Amino acid sequence: MASTSPVFIVAGIGNGSGRLIPRLFAKHGYRVALIARHADQAKKLADEINKAGGEAAGFGSNDYAYKSIIAVWDEIKAFKWPSSQQTAPIRAALWNASNGGFGSFLDVTEESLQQSIEANVTGAFAFSRQAILTFRENDVDERGKRGTLLFTGATASIRGNVFTSAFAAGKFGLRSLSQSLSKEFGKENIHVAHAIIDGGILTDRGRERHTGDARKEYEENNDIRLDPDSIASSYLYLANQDRSAWTWELDLRPAHEKW
Amino acid sequence: MASTSPVFIVAGIGNGSGRLIPRLFAKHGYRVALIARHADQAKKLADEINKAGGEAAGFGSNDYAYKSIIAVWDEIKAFKWPSSQQTAPIRAALWNASNGGFGSFLDVTEESLQQSIEANVTGAFAFSRQAILTFRENDVDERGKRGTLLFTGATASIRGNVFTSAFAAGKFGLRSLSQSLSKEFGKENIHVAHAIIDGGILTDRGRERHTGDARKEYEENNDIRLDPDSIASSYLYLANQDRSAWTWELDLRPAHEKW
Amino acid sequence: MASTSPVFIVAGIGNGSGRLIPRLFAKHGYRVALIARHADQAKKLADEINKAGGEAAGFGSNDYAYKSIIAVWDEIKAFKWPSSQQTAPIRAALWNASNGGFGSFLDVTEESLQQSIEANVTGAFAFSRQAILTFRENDVDERGKRGTLLFTGATASIRGNVFTSAFAAGKFGLRSLSQSLSKEFGKENIHVAHAIIDGGILTDRGRERHTGDARKEYEENNDIRLDPDSIASSYLYLANQDRSAWTWELDLRPAHEKW
Amino acid sequence: MASTSPVFIVAGIGNGSGRLIPRLFAKHGYRVALIARHADQAKKLADEINKAGGEAAGFGSNDYAYKSIIAVWDEIKAFKWPSSQQTAPIRAALWNASNGGFGSFLDVTEESLQQSIEANVTGAFAFSRQAILTFRENDVDERGKRGTLLFTGATASIRGNVFTSAFAAGKFGLRSLSQSLSKEFGKENIHVAHAIIDGGILTDRGRERHTGDARKEYEENNDIRLDPDSIASSYLYLANQDRSAWTWELDLRPAHEKW
Repeated sequence: MASTSPVFIVAGIGNGSGRLIPRLFAKHGYRVALIARHADQAKKLADEINKAGGEAAGFGSNDYAYKSIIAVWDEIKAFKWPSSQQTAPIRAALWNASNGGFGSFLDVTEESLQQSIEANVTGAFAFSRQAILTFRENDVDERGKRGTLLFTGATASIRGNVFTSAFAAGKFGLRSLSQSLSKEFGKENIHVAHAIIDGGILTDRGRERHTGDARKEYEENNDIRLDPDSIASSYLYLANQDRSAWTWELDLRPAHEKW
Repeated sequence: MASTSPVFIVAGIGNGSGRLIPRLFAKHGYRVALIARHADQAKKLADEINKAGGEAAGFGSNDYAYKSIIAVWDEIKAFKWPSSQQTAPIRAALWNASNGGFGSFLDVTEESLQQSIEANVTGAFAFSRQAILTFRENDVDERGKRGTLLFTGATASIRGNVFTSAFAAGKFGLRSLSQSLSKEFGKENIHVAHAIIDGGILTDRGRERHTGDARKEYEENNDIRLDPDSIASSYLYLANQDRSAWTWELDLRPAHEKW
Repeated sequence: MASTSPVFIVAGIGNGSGRLIPRLFAKHGYRVALIARHADQAKKLADEINKAGGEAAGFGSNDYAYKSIIAVWDEIKAFKWPSSQQTAPIRAALWNASNGGFGSFLDVTEESLQQSIEANVTGAFAFSRQAILTFRENDVDERGKRGTLLFTGATASIRGNVFTSAFAAGKFGLRSLSQSLSKEFGKENIHVAHAIIDGGILTDRGRERHTGDARKEYEENNDIRLDPDSIASSYLYLANQDRSAWTWELDLRPAHEKW
Repeated sequence: MASTSPVFIVAGIGNGSGRLIPRLFAKHGYRVALIARHADQAKKLADEINKAGGEAAGFGSNDYAYKSIIAVWDEIKAFKWPSSQQTAPIRAALWNASNGGFGSFLDVTEESLQQSIEANVTGAFAFSRQAILTFRENDVDERGKRGTLLFTGATASIRGNVFTSAFAAGKFGLRSLSQSLSKEFGKENIHVAHAIIDGGILTDRGRERHTGDARKEYEENNDIRLDPDSIASSYLYLANQDRSAWTWELDLRPAHEKW
């Protein structure tokens, strides 16, 4: 890769889209830096991307605490990419981490609440701080951007519901962060966008929950659940929008989703 | 063009994006049927597209009344496209009409209210009826769609404001229509989407309002107003989304827009 | 009644709250002017209120067309109230009219769409115009108001849904009108508010749909459907809010409503 | 007071409405338990309420951490009210705490973010847990309620903005909590409501920021800022709503507020 090939940082690769999005960006010329709470998981995905002809590196962050996220981002900024033996400009970043069990409000423990807040809010603030400070140092590229900062939301980002109190509190907070950032840093040509994923995503875990014909249906019927590849295309589209028409927010759902 | 090349119908070509969107779709293999209240205007744009190598035809509808829109759509359905001497499958449609002056609520006349409602609601209902009935006859294409129905919204779609009472009443109504349709017809693989255009668009009229350096700035600085070409790209992106991740709504604004 | 007793105008008395709201305002010192599409219905309710010790008068408007609403309001402004043989200051007004069948979008006819738009938008614009112009002539009362303009919304005011396309288009439009008016005329001490009624209301028609124990449950269980008297209390509360803390919008639903 | 007089718990009494709301509830027959981060402040306000003929008690919570809020609520549940020498049924509770500086996102420190989250989310979750568990033990009163749980929101509850990133993240989270709770516990006759305060409130600190005529204007003109007494009336209205028509959310702003 050229020494100037841009870096795309993704935090949160545990779900299907967390794996497919970096792969797609890698195919489109981005170096990919992966952050996971298990460094092994990040390195494994990085290996897969490297084998497929991309350039990726995995980084571990034990948790999504503020300081941990600040630290891992610093590590990535200082990272010398093998193909050029140099650091590379970070031009896109995605906060894809998520956490928050489902269940009655009365079953939300202090700990589970804390996890939702850390994964959805505190960590995202630290991640955004690093992204904004980093992007500000970039020049404006041919699309009119210094960088793109993406966030993954959910139905719970716009609706508190029975059984989602902790998750929604975090996701509402994340959404408001993305809106504040979009308003403050658009004028510095930093693009901030928020995707509301409304529906189930095709995942290995989802596969395991189905058997027989139902699994076949689940695996093959793109009408009924999101394909992580399609989500990835949407994120790439957002990253590619030019300065004259930026999207802050879009929703994504399968054709047959009831909503 | 192949006899199976799909048709894209656009109603409302008076503003900048109304002209650029059909051009871009034409470049991407769509036949374009243009509806304007002045048939001449529609035919003139069709000529331009034809000269550029596309295939387009212009149709006049004196107003956006329910029956007028039903009629012009019937005309388009029966239209034999020159390149194939046959009718062609309609696979995408955009209601881009708009109307609604700005000013104090007390200056809204019965007539200006009526115009806003017709352009934003009544006409859109008729247009949607024809689109849905037409798309239903299509088979599902390789993207998992029978058709894409697009609507152009504005900031006034989500916020009533001083000086926008009539316009917002129409635009709110249009937005709700798009949401109802998305929920009812997604399961039939008809994709309905609504774009919120938040900011001024580069137009000839806009050019005329600026002089000297300000005009140069207005014409060249993509940070401060929407480029119709960028809007067009977004609409094409929506039309191309595959069935597993459809967007109902996205917003579009220039990088430096204050919001 | 004192010649200065204020008048409260209500358009749309067909549903339960349309009858109970004027009764409650009458008990609290308002003269009540009732507008219905059937003058008989309005006069009958006026008689009931008069018998109960209030002062009310019924007015007919054949439809909710713009001109009809302008005309009936003029009639009310000129009306000499029996108790004082004089006209009286109009200080509150409620647009409670509603229309819009339920069913597939494909069953919406031009006529049913037109009725929804007339009852929810066109008529409401005319009604609001008269209210604003009338209130402007009032002095500011002890609550800091020249008048209160109320609107009745529904779940469909904020969510387009399968089977509510026409109704929602009208209700979205009405909601945006109320927001525009609130923003434009608050500074002239005219209070505009919008209530989102989310749930079924106890009505005679509702009673008839139930039999036996189910009717008893429906009639007596205030947890499961709105009591028009409770809605009326909320509207009176809105009318009584003082200038330092006005509500534009509130929702109302029964305790056990699933939402 | 009768041994059965209900208790109203308020957390967050630092701003104007935090002092006036408990006073008004006290006048309307509630015992008031006040929670502040400075016990002295809570006790001082309690004294004032007691001198005015109410019954109040102040409690300190050093911070809004989860465990602190759980603990102080337990203390209140066990508290024997002087007039009856017994504990009393808790029937209403208000989370009025707030925190979150204003400024560029880049000036948000980990600590200031943490404070916003604690005051707006973590503490509110703990407070709500105690409220729900406590209310569940109550019988249904004559209004059809086991209890009312109120939350104070702000413009930042519904809009992330330049200079409000940390505050809005907390307030969005609080709003979603209130919605989740309303949906889950309405069916148990627990009423949850959220008030969006949109505008400045008359406070001592506000007074000090103005001098001369501007101070007179600020103090006397109820059109331009919220009077805490008016806010208090709204909260009392919410607590008094009967089961058939509950409000989850309303906004409150001065007549002349630009919005």
